[in-house]
Order: sequence, then C-alpha cells, then structure tokens
Amino acid sequence: MGDNTLKSLNDLQEIIGSDLEKYYSENPSDPLFHPIYYLLKIGGKRMRPALVLLANQMLDGNIDHARSAALAVEVFHNFTLMHDDIMDEAPLRRGETTVHQKWNNNTAILSGDAMMIEAYRLLCLSPSNHLSALMQVFNEVALGVCKGQALDMSFERRTDVNRHEYVEMIRLKTAVLLGGALQLGGITANANVETQNHLFKIGEELGLSFQLMDDYLDAFGDPAKFGKRVGGDIISDKKTYLRILLEEKASAEDLKIIHSTFNSEIEKIETIKKLMTTYKVDEDILSLKTQYSDSALEHLNAIPCPEENKNELRRIIHQLAEREA
Amino acid sequence: MGDNTLKSLNDLQEIIGSDLEKYYSENPSDPLFHPIYYLLKIGGKRMRPALVLLANQMLDGNIDHARSAALAVEVFHNFTLMHDDIMDEAPLRRGETTVHQKWNNNTAILSGDAMMIEAYRLLCLSPSNHLSALMQVFNEVALGVCKGQALDMSFERRTDVNRHEYVEMIRLKTAVLLGGALQLGGITANANVETQNHLFKIGEELGLSFQLMDDYLDAFGDPAKFGKRVGGDIISDKKTYLRILLEEKASAEDLKIIHSTFNSEIEKIETIKKLMTTYKVDEDILSLKTQYSDSALEHLNAIPCPEENKNELRRIIHQLAEREA
Repeated sequence: MGDNTLKSLNDLQEIIGSDLEKYYSENPSDPLFHPIYYLLKIGGKRMRPALVLLANQMLDGNIDHARSAALAVEVFHNFTLMHDDIMDEAPLRRGETTVHQKWNNNTAILSGDAMMIEAYRLLCLSPSNHLSALMQVFNEVALGVCKGQALDMSFERRTDVNRHEYVEMIRLKTAVLLGGALQLGGITANANVETQNHLFKIGEELGLSFQLMDDYLDAFGDPAKFGKRVGGDIISDKKTYLRILLEEKASAEDLKIIHSTFNSEIEKIETIKKLMTTYKVDEDILSLKTQYSDSALEHLNAIPCPEENKNELRRIIHQLAEREA
Repeated sequence: MGDNTLKSLNDLQEIIGSDLEKYYSENPSDPLFHPIYYLLKIGGKRMRPALVLLANQMLDGNIDHARSAALAVEVFHNFTLMHDDIMDEAPLRRGETTVHQKWNNNTAILSGDAMMIEAYRLLCLSPSNHLSALMQVFNEVALGVCKGQALDMSFERRTDVNRHEYVEMIRLKTAVLLGGALQLGGITANANVETQNHLFKIGEELGLSFQLMDDYLDAFGDPAKFGKRVGGDIISDKKTYLRILLEEKASAEDLKIIHSTFNSEIEKIETIKKLMTTYKVDEDILSLKTQYSDSALEHLNAIPCPEENKNELRRIIHQLAEREA
C-alpha cells in the first residue's frame, strides 16, 4: 500500500463524524436515546476513536473492521462524561448544559447506563474473530476508568495524596482509554500481542503526558492561547501534579504561605506560581511529561511496520507534547 | 444421562452461591467493589442465574460452560437494583440499607457502573465459541431492561397509561431478563435458534405471569402468607395492572370514588378492592397470568429434549403461577 493511500487524522475524524451521524438516526424517537445523542453531538475532537482507526491503518488493517470499535470507544468515553458530570455536579460540558442539568439526574444515570450497553453492542458489531480479544481489552480498560474515577473522588476527601498516587489516578482515569483505543485498533488489524502491548503503552504514555501538560498549562499557559482562565486550579486548591509536588518539596514556612488566606485571587495565583518556579516544580512537570512522550515514541519505534505508516501517530505525539492550549 | 444426575433448583442455587463466594474474594480490598459485594450478599433467591444453569442442564450441556454466564446475569441484575434504588430514592432493599444510603449517590452510580462492566467481564469468561451469541443476547436484554426502567419512570409523570403499555413496561423491565437467562443457558448448551427462541419465550412469559401475580397479591394476598403489607400499592396509588384495568372499566361515578379522599387507609383499601372485585379485575388479572404461564408451558413442551429434563423448569413455572407470597 503506498503512502498516498494513508489517511490523515483529519480524514479519520471525518469518517467517525459520518459514522456518528448514521448512529444518531438509529433510534430518533426513543427518549432514552435523546440525551445520548445530545451529549455525543456536543462534540469534542473524537481523538479516541481516531486512535482506533489510526492504529488499524498503521498496521495495514481493513479500516471497516475497526469502525465499530472506534464508535464503541467514543460512545463509552461519552458515557463516562455523562456519569462523571453527575458526580461532579458540573453544569457545563464543553460550554453546553450537561445532561443531568438539561434533563435530571435519573435520566442521566439511566441514559448513561444505556450508553455503556450501546458501547458494548457497537463493539460486538466488529468481525467475530476479533471479538474475544476486543472484549478483553475493552473490559479491562472500562474497569480501569471506573477505578480512576473512584481514586479521583477519594482524593477529594484526603490531604495526603502523593504524586505517585496522582499519576496512578490519571493513568487509570484518562490514559488507559487512549492505550485501549490504540490496542483495539491493533487487534482489528490482527496485531500480535507484542505489537498490541506497544500500542497500549503509546496511548497510555501519551495520555499521561497530555494530562500533565493540562496541569502545567492551567498554571503556566499563555492566557492568549489557553482556552480557559489561567490559574483556575490554583484558586480552587485542586490537587494537580504541580500542587502535590510543590507541597512535597516546600519548606514548613512556605507550606504555611501556601495554606494561608490571600487578599485576592490574583495574589494567590502569583504567590503560588512564584513558589512553583522557586521549587522548580514547573520544570519537573515538563521533564516528566517529556519522559512520557519520549517513551511513547520509543514504543512507536519498536513496532515492526513501514515507517511512513507511523508518521501521523508520531506527529500527534509531538503535537500533544508541545501544545500550548 | 440418567434422571438421577439432574440437579434440582436448590442444587443449582447452591452452585451459584459457591461461585459468588469465590467472586467476593477477587477484589476484597478495592473500595469500588465493597458496595458490589455488599449488595450481592444481601441475597435474593438467585432465580435468574439458576435459570441459566437450568436451561443448560435441560439441554444436556456442560454446566461449567454456563457458570460464568449465570454469574454475569446475577451481577447484571444487581447492577440494575443498585441504580434503580438511587432513581427511586429507596431506603431499603430486601430489608437492608440500600447502597446509595449506606454510602452515597456517587458511590452507587460508580460502583453500579463497575458492576455492569463486571457482568460483561464475567460473561466473557464463557467458552469463546459461544461468545458472539451470548453477547448479542446479553446486549439486547440489557438495553431492554433500561428501556423498561425508562418507561416505568415516564409512567410516574403520566395519568393515561393503558394496560398494554403497562404490560410492555413489565415485559422490558422484568421479563426479558428471565427470558435472556434461559436463552443464555441454552446457548451454552449449543441450542439451535428455534430452541433458543422457545427458551426466551418461556422466561418472558414466566416473568410476565410473575409480575402480574405480584400486582394481584399486593391487593388480594393473604396477609398471613404475603410478606409485605397487603394494600400498599392501593395506598400509594401505584399504577399496577389491577389499578389501570379498574380505571379503564370503571364508570364515571366509580372513577370519582376511586380518586376521592378517604377517611382512612383501611377505608381506601377496602373501597378500591371492592370495586376491583365488582369490575372483576381480580379475575381478569388471574386469567391473564394463567394465559402467560400456560404459554410458557407450551413453549417448554415444544423443546425437543427428554421430558424428564424439563421437570424442574415445569415445576418452577407451576410454582410461580400458584404462589401465595
């Protein structure tokens, strides 16, 4: 297969968009599905299903064998958003009213449940010779995401969370689904177990690097480029990697300052950011992030397939590692 | 295989009990699993998983090929209870504190989600040659149960629910899971599609007959034998089959009485029960219930397997149809 037949991330996202449109037309009049379609239509970059298709394409798979798994991953991801938003009492999701706010908690619980079943149903539309392997990965990833959310909720009740626990939480809550997406794509292209493991690690390291960058940008992003308000995590005393590391490294005296009452939000942001740079936790997080993205690239290099097939995934890893927003 | 090797319902329930004990020991220290084990341990008759094993045995299957599916059905059923109890704000489940009361709503949402994933994971431990068929039935049944719960919730906001809609609601919410349990058991014994369909119908009709009997006993059960307080549905104006049928048959004058304010709960129960017998809706519901259980028996007769293999399931159908509590 020549390079000219390789699809870009953008091409793959369009395929997913068109498959989603077909999906919306399946149960247009069933009220159980209205919140499901509503949330899916709010959008997002469709990065997870794109990773399924990308791994399939990288290994010269038949893309049609991966499309159901891709859709399953997107529906599953949105199921987690629907239930997480209830648990977090979030009023907005990507600027739109969340399902539990637009309808009510019960509807969001029940449509979320239906959405998870739908994810499994879609996955089962994959070629039956892949089914057992697909299901095994999907189950493990899905349970991991729940464990990550449980850890995240438990952290809110604790003051002693260390950075290793934090990384484990984001690994489960965010990274394993990216790893799973690539692995599922690999399975649909008949990847052997070794390649599947590399694919999973690529997604996992990519997810960790992405989430750490999220933490970094929230404090040190360029306000002109960063979409959200810079310093939001600092104001809400959110236990991000930056904050946990700062509290681990800070002297008793500086810890007092961190936990003191500030005259204004600006003062709080400035004071804590200054301490973060003093203790070099900004450099630490960027260095850890780079370790993860470098490791993702190493796993990509180890996969035995034509180098040009890897270009798009390599580009995505670089792009996410160097993003400014 | 001789008759003496056939296991009774009780034997099968014991196997499930022992498999559940093993299951509880898998993740003893993970807090995500504590509510899962708690709810499962509250108990119940394990009727659904027993139906899986019973269908497998009836068709001379290898019981070990059905045990994971049986466990999956029980875990799925309890997942629905965990989430339904949140939605219904129920304080008690079989006399014990519900999960959302003992912990909180978020824990019940999240552990319920994990529980559904666990159900799929357990199902996937079945022999891989059955996996595709098992998954297809399981997905359809699971989505049906959600649709049934959605209908049930929507009925609370409506005053014009007719008996056909009510039957459709209990079919989805309760009966399809019994049908699915028998069908899954059939699949594990390599049943052909025709036999699978008979098995599904047996469970479905059994479930309808069971639920109608529930409605009947709540009003007309013998207080000495019926576990709950007789008349509870009447007091709470619950739209049961009895009540819907009464309102469909009652004269305008009697409708006024039904909707009037009563001096006491006893007066309300007595007045409405008297109207139910006047309009013979008690006879109607018993007659419909018998139609369903007769139809279940017909489907059982149509299955081509040794008659003695059917005895236990036939006994269960009779027992449920004639129960007094």
